[in-house]
Amino acid sequence: MPKLVDHDERRRSITAAAWRLIAARGIDAANMRDIAAEAGYTNGALSHYFAGKDEILRTSYEHISEVTDRRIREALGDATGLDALRILCREVMPTNEEKLLEARIAASLWPRAMYDEQMAATNRQTMDNWREQMAIFLEQAREEGTVGDIDVSIVVEQLLNMMMGMQILGVLTPGETSSERQLEMLEQFVAAL
Amino acid sequence: MPKLVDHDERRRSITAAAWRLIAARGIDAANMRDIAAEAGYTNGALSHYFAGKDEILRTSYEHISEVTDRRIREALGDATGLDALRILCREVMPTNEEKLLEARIAASLWPRAMYDEQMAATNRQTMDNWREQMAIFLEQAREEGTVGDIDVSIVVEQLLNMMMGMQILGVLTPGETSSERQLEMLEQFVAAL
Repeated sequence: MPKLVDHDERRRSITAAAWRLIAARGIDAANMRDIAAEAGYTNGALSHYFAGKDEILRTSYEHISEVTDRRIREALGDATGLDALRILCREVMPTNEEKLLEARIAASLWPRAMYDEQMAATNRQTMDNWREQMAIFLEQAREEGTVGDIDVSIVVEQLLNMMMGMQILGVLTPGETSSERQLEMLEQFVAAL
Repeated sequence: MPKLVDHDERRRSITAAAWRLIAARGIDAANMRDIAAEAGYTNGALSHYFAGKDEILRTSYEHISEVTDRRIREALGDATGLDALRILCREVMPTNEEKLLEARIAASLWPRAMYDEQMAATNRQTMDNWREQMAIFLEQAREEGTVGDIDVSIVVEQLLNMMMGMQILGVLTPGETSSERQLEMLEQFVAAL
C-alpha cells in the first residue's frame, strides 16, 4: 500500500515541522499557518493530513513515545537486570539536544493531557509501558542478586517520577540538572538499590 | 497603607478565581472575561488589577511558591535534619486536593516558563530556594549521623526531580502516583540515605 505509507510519512514530516516550531516559540505561538509553511505545504494541503492543531499535537505526543521506545529497543539488545534498567532510563532522560527537544514538547503537552482524554490515554500507555519494563528489569536484578530486598513497585515509581521531573528541570534549570548530573543521579540511585 | 493592602488582596482573590477556572477547564480555555466573572468583576474593573492574562498567569505562578513556602515555614518549627527534609518534601508533594490544584497550575505554567523570562526566573528562584534548604537539612543529617556518606548535591537533585515528576504523575496517573505511594516513595528514599 504505497499510498498509505506516503500518507504516514507526510504526517510524520508535518509533525516534525510542528516540533521545530514549538521548540523555537512555544506551543501557543505555533499556529497552523506557520506549521504548514515550515513543512512546505499550503494551509489547504495541510488539511489533507491533519484536521487541526489539536490533531497535530496529539500525534506529536504519540510520536515522542514511539521515537523513545524505538531508541530503547535498539539500545537494549540482550541486556537484562540493572544494565537494562540503566539503558531504558538513559533513553528517556533528556541528556542531549534531541531528547531535550522531546522533553520540551512532552512538557508542553502534559497540561493538555490533563483535560484531553486521548492525550491522557497516550500518556498512561507510555508510563505503564515503562513501569512494566522497569519492573521486569528490577525482578531480573533481584534474581541475579545485584539488588537488595527492594520494593519493586515503589522503586519503579521513584525512578519514573525522577525521570519525568528531569523533563522539566533539564530544560528549566540546565545548570543543576545537566546531562552529566542526570547520569550521576541515575548511577547513584541504582547503586543504592 | 490600607489602599495598597486592599489592592494586593484583590489581586490575590482574582488570582484565586483564575486558579479555579484553570483547574476546571485548562489554561487555554480560561480567558479574561471568564476570570473577571468568576472573581466578581467586570472586564473593565479587572483591568485595574491585571494588564492581561499573561500577568495573571505570572502572578499565579509566584503565588504557588509563596503559598507552598508559607506552609513549609509553618510546618518546619524547630525541625532539623531528616525530619525537616521530610516536612519540606511533604508540603511540595501533591498529596491532597489543595496541593493537586497547585500541581495542575504549576505544570500548566512550566511550558510558558520555557519561553517567558519572568516565569523562568520565578521557577529558578523557587527551585534554588528548595535546593538550598534541602542541602542544609542533609548537612544537618550528616552531622547528626542519620545518613551515610552521601553526595548532598546529587541527593538534593534526585529528590527535587522526583517531587517535580510527582506534580505531573500525581495528576496524570493518580493510581500509581497516589498520595499514599508518594509518601512511601519519600520514606523509602530517605531510609536508603
